Amino acid sequence: MAQYRLIKTDGLAKSAEFTTVHGTVQTPVFMNVGTVGAIKGAVSTEDLERIGTQIELSNTYHLHVRPGDEVVKKMGGLHRFMSWDRPILTDSGGFQVFSLADLRKIKEEGVTFHSHIDGRLIFMGPEESMTIQSNLGSTIAMAFDECPPSTAERSYVDQSVARTSRWLVRCKNRMNELNSREDTVNPHQLLFGINQGAIYPDIRISHAKEITELDLDGYAIGGLAVGETHEQMYDILDHVVPYLPQDKPTYLMGVGTPANILEGIDRGVDFFDCVYPSRNGRHGHVYTKYGHLNLFNAKYELDSRPIEEGCGCPACTRYSRAYIRHLMKAKEMLGMRLCTLHNLYFYNNLVADAREAIREGRYKAFKKMKLEGFAAGEQG
Amino acid sequence: MAQYRLIKTDGLAKSAEFTTVHGTVQTPVFMNVGTVGAIKGAVSTEDLERIGTQIELSNTYHLHVRPGDEVVKKMGGLHRFMSWDRPILTDSGGFQVFSLADLRKIKEEGVTFHSHIDGRLIFMGPEESMTIQSNLGSTIAMAFDECPPSTAERSYVDQSVARTSRWLVRCKNRMNELNSREDTVNPHQLLFGINQGAIYPDIRISHAKEITELDLDGYAIGGLAVGETHEQMYDILDHVVPYLPQDKPTYLMGVGTPANILEGIDRGVDFFDCVYPSRNGRHGHVYTKYGHLNLFNAKYELDSRPIEEGCGCPACTRYSRAYIRHLMKAKEMLGMRLCTLHNLYFYNNLVADAREAIREGRYKAFKKMKLEGFAAGEQG
Repeated sequence: MAQYRLIKTDGLAKSAEFTTVHGTVQTPVFMNVGTVGAIKGAVSTEDLERIGTQIELSNTYHLHVRPGDEVVKKMGGLHRFMSWDRPILTDSGGFQVFSLADLRKIKEEGVTFHSHIDGRLIFMGPEESMTIQSNLGSTIAMAFDECPPSTAERSYVDQSVARTSRWLVRCKNRMNELNSREDTVNPHQLLFGINQGAIYPDIRISHAKEITELDLDGYAIGGLAVGETHEQMYDILDHVVPYLPQDKPTYLMGVGTPANILEGIDRGVDFFDCVYPSRNGRHGHVYTKYGHLNLFNAKYELDSRPIEEGCGCPACTRYSRAYIRHLMKAKEMLGMRLCTLHNLYFYNNLVADAREAIREGRYKAFKKMKLEGFAAGEQG
Repeated sequence: MAQYRLIKTDGLAKSAEFTTVHGTVQTPVFMNVGTVGAIKGAVSTEDLERIGTQIELSNTYHLHVRPGDEVVKKMGGLHRFMSWDRPILTDSGGFQVFSLADLRKIKEEGVTFHSHIDGRLIFMGPEESMTIQSNLGSTIAMAFDECPPSTAERSYVDQSVARTSRWLVRCKNRMNELNSREDTVNPHQLLFGINQGAIYPDIRISHAKEITELDLDGYAIGGLAVGETHEQMYDILDHVVPYLPQDKPTYLMGVGTPANILEGIDRGVDFFDCVYPSRNGRHGHVYTKYGHLNLFNAKYELDSRPIEEGCGCPACTRYSRAYIRHLMKAKEMLGMRLCTLHNLYFYNNLVADAREAIREGRYKAFKKMKLEGFAAGEQG
């Protein structure tokens, strides 16, 4: 059902149109993270439409424990539940299981862990993850994988990646079966595989070759931005992206800063997601073309300028730094909302500009100009 | 500068147009409370325009301690600071001083207290309250009064009301002086006096007569909804409203439930404010024509209906009870925002309907129909 149409390459950077049953995504794209079916910071799907969001990402683990994927299915799937008719990607739950949950036990079948909400024991393996994501009815489901830390020992990573490959086959089989069921929410649900291998280029490459053979709808690079340096991350991308299919989406999971995203695009990535814009927004850290500002800083007390001059977001078109700083200091939710809206708009706009630059064959110059701006620091 | 044009009376209920330098308010009106220059629940002034808010109320005490009224003045006044060009009413700070602040000492000059933010010692009397409100540049300033509890002894209330009268003269004098200063934010700032007297009708009436002689821009009834029964409140309104000028706004401070507001209107009140819609919204309590719902209730888990069928608010036009319940349970700010928007819309709409009913001479029937609906409980 999905069609990935490559529109333009510019060096390794690529810009494409990815058509799904929930509409078309222009890449490169930044996915806005709505963990429990809502973007933190009081941002609604109506707001997402306004700030240029093309695709939303929700977390399978969180939705499984609350409200429960069966509830979401009964409500007609996640699209109807959160009133969003454009694409949704769900992660597999794996990352949260390995990072949030208590007392996990990893076996060949899957993982046993305690819910962080009520402590109840939950088992999740490839089949369970696919079933939950099928109940959610997302546009794109992610394969259930283990995400070893980038600092893990080589011997552990070898074993882990082999298991992730076996799990991937089970994911594919179960997703095929679920999509053909009569009561499925989204019979056209797509499946992306995930490349792992920590910071060992040879493991990454052999794993990339292995999963590419499964001919999935897209491929992600997981396990980065979890402890390694930016240079190590870029190095892994340099090694592995060439081994992922050019004619399918390439997704760099959980990355990252505006600079990380520009570097990822330059290496051939076209899907990104990260909690930075929303999490930082809730703490008064906001992005501008001249780097980021901490609105708690006293120098903004009487600053009547918007967060960024010329920005078209709902915060900048109406409210001053001084006002938003006051809201943050007074712990008013509106402050967090305005900062989050600005930051998401900033990220969405950054990748839109990158897209345009690629399509016009001037990506390198664009990236250089942007990175110099971020490093310049605030003007005036 | 202000003009109160009575459009229609229906029994004691009145509907008017109150024209100020910041635009015209149609009464009866419900003022939406934005304590620190923002409505709690991540509601912005842009949202207020959308949900039919005519006039916003902010709290002098809170803005004085943070960000400071001098800061607001330097930013061009509260209207510019919060980006709201319609009327704003500021309270006097008195109520908060008597209810929030520590170690208060009441003297003839005013009150000494500790800030609830940083503990610093602050003195506020009639002149200070007028100066702060002048710095904020609100459309309507409220007189600085003492608000004795409705359960206070008669002898205490007698003394307190006499002092409030002396303070009112000082408020009027200072406001006249401030309005004529060259650097004032709003040279047309209005002043409303406040009637006190706990639940002693004779004290209320003699105080009403006394303050009416000062020929202020409007009159409020303070010190109700602070411990007495609803019947006692209505009884006081029955006694005192006839002694307040018919050709000026009558404002019942801090009241109340939808039923309280309908009863207040029926007794001649035309301005109201209350934190109920926003505070209750943040706790998942939402209003409907059939009474209020607690969205935490398990019966809404799979309820695909909006909070209220037919409601035109930003929550009901797009999201289900089941979704908003999930957000509330997951402690997502968006849940609080949607419930708050619905509740404020509900209140704004209720008084708009009351206005129409008065202007069409059918207020008694309207009130009866509404009160029966609220008492009916949820349908289905």
